[in-house]
Amino acid sequence: MSKHNHKNDTSSGTKPDSTYLALSGGVGGAKLALGLSQLLAQRLSIMANTSDDFVHLGLNISPDLDTVMYTLADLNNKELGWGLANESWQFMDALKQLNQPHWFRLGDRDLATHITRTEQLKQGDDLSQVTQQLSDALNIKSHLFPMTDQVVSTFVKLEDESALGFQEYFVKEQCQPKISGYFFEGIEKTKPSQSFYDTLSQPSLAAIIICPSNPFVSVEPILSVPHIADTIRQHPAPVIAVCPIIAGQAVKGPTAKMMKELNMPASALGVAEYYQSQYGGLLDGFVIDEKDHHLQPALESMGLSVLVVNTMMNTLQDRVTLADHCLSFAARWTNEHSSS
Amino acid sequence: MSKHNHKNDTSSGTKPDSTYLALSGGVGGAKLALGLSQLLAQRLSIMANTSDDFVHLGLNISPDLDTVMYTLADLNNKELGWGLANESWQFMDALKQLNQPHWFRLGDRDLATHITRTEQLKQGDDLSQVTQQLSDALNIKSHLFPMTDQVVSTFVKLEDESALGFQEYFVKEQCQPKISGYFFEGIEKTKPSQSFYDTLSQPSLAAIIICPSNPFVSVEPILSVPHIADTIRQHPAPVIAVCPIIAGQAVKGPTAKMMKELNMPASALGVAEYYQSQYGGLLDGFVIDEKDHHLQPALESMGLSVLVVNTMMNTLQDRVTLADHCLSFAARWTNEHSSS
Repeated sequence: MSKHNHKNDTSSGTKPDSTYLALSGGVGGAKLALGLSQLLAQRLSIMANTSDDFVHLGLNISPDLDTVMYTLADLNNKELGWGLANESWQFMDALKQLNQPHWFRLGDRDLATHITRTEQLKQGDDLSQVTQQLSDALNIKSHLFPMTDQVVSTFVKLEDESALGFQEYFVKEQCQPKISGYFFEGIEKTKPSQSFYDTLSQPSLAAIIICPSNPFVSVEPILSVPHIADTIRQHPAPVIAVCPIIAGQAVKGPTAKMMKELNMPASALGVAEYYQSQYGGLLDGFVIDEKDHHLQPALESMGLSVLVVNTMMNTLQDRVTLADHCLSFAARWTNEHSSS
Repeated sequence: MSKHNHKNDTSSGTKPDSTYLALSGGVGGAKLALGLSQLLAQRLSIMANTSDDFVHLGLNISPDLDTVMYTLADLNNKELGWGLANESWQFMDALKQLNQPHWFRLGDRDLATHITRTEQLKQGDDLSQVTQQLSDALNIKSHLFPMTDQVVSTFVKLEDESALGFQEYFVKEQCQPKISGYFFEGIEKTKPSQSFYDTLSQPSLAAIIICPSNPFVSVEPILSVPHIADTIRQHPAPVIAVCPIIAGQAVKGPTAKMMKELNMPASALGVAEYYQSQYGGLLDGFVIDEKDHHLQPALESMGLSVLVVNTMMNTLQDRVTLADHCLSFAARWTNEHSSS
């Protein structure tokens, strides 16, 4: 099908057998993934960033996979905004008593996930298998999988050109250091997980949705796994990104701060320009918040279809509503295809 | 010095610079180790059994070392009789939710010990170094160390000649299966930890005390590490064992049941005969409970000095009192030496 600009506003519901792929980082992405999951259940596949993964105290920790998993299982901690609900911190307390590093907070319940993952990886399962087993145990209906089964590690580059592991930057240093760049160590040796190819080979795939995650350290690692960006761009399904920046600010996390430090305009325009220039016109549609409605003409002049809706997801209903808007938006391409 | 039978009842206090070595398994041994530690502080070394150690969920678990360590640090759980005080079980709850094996209960606080140990072993420290670091962090003044830095694993043999890992027998099966024997896999390839040799080379060493632990699966592994039994027997310091059987019953654990299944008399006499026959007259002194006072003549006819006191350690004061009795008992040999 054609992937040119579409402005037909006659959106319709999704076909009952359509399937969808969402690309997600952590908290922001997980909110939309939850909304999509509520509407689509097993028709949704979610490919999560694993470049934030690291080994801490000997445990294999996958922050983004876990955030999405806990969110979809309705086990996420709504007060903290990360980790598990009903969490306790006895392990951390005892760890401090043993003079061990305690800058990365691991909850007592959360440890069960990391210990299980670490043990299963040691037994020879790959991260996709482990993620499937954990998801099954938590009765998650959508199909969650990592971008790759190989190890990748995000580092940020500081102004003095030294490198800092992502979790140290993000958690230990609270994103305070000014960055001059970032890189994904080992990315060139990775390959997409089999589930990525399986998902894209489904004739029912109706859209690829890039969740409102940090474009640089959450989405870029996914798109930097060799073959993923090319395969997505060449696929007939429309690619739709939901902008993580609202009125020049990130809803959560360092996206806006990073954009400024990387000399990009911290705006929906900057995000769209980044995706289109970095990946050769990857996007077909772009979803922005009502507060950024004045950017619609500029975005459309870039050749993008634009959907202007509320993208701030405070409640579960907000998440489902935005997901529904995204699916209707994606259906424009299907309808055009059906009628062409 | 002579290691013949001594019946001089004129016991005296310990010399202020005397040092002592205690051999200990888990709970029962740790009680006396605590009493000794209260009296001796850094003058006490404790060599613990590590043949119960196992790897569970990828974690290196050392039940006896931990029981002694927690007891000496006054962090042990006095209600449960094992594990840490103020423990919680959120990890176990989450582990069950993930359909993982949960027959071995790991407390949230306890996990900090296992995760730290596992990580430090992986980083290249040996078990002696890890134990020292953990003990230091918990401000333990006495010197706790493992019998060996190599891996040994206790198995019990069942009547059908199949073998069961010790923790599965002890925890999962609650010592229910009838056993026909036991063995310590890998023991022949171990060597004593350096601290054992360091402790025995101190001219100040005044006694070696075998705590009231299970003779078969707690003390025998220690004495089965090549060179340990011989080195102890040849050392001039007296070897004193405190009997774990009182009136034919074990205070805790499967000792009496095992003795019956192994066709030994489940009595103080059976314990003494076991130590003397198995290790060529290892013991100089034997401490029995008042309830077993009638066994004193039979024990003395085996060539043992016998101390009859209360050996039931219900309170901290009981532990200190029994420890004090043991030290006074040991001083008989020193006094004889001084006056000979």
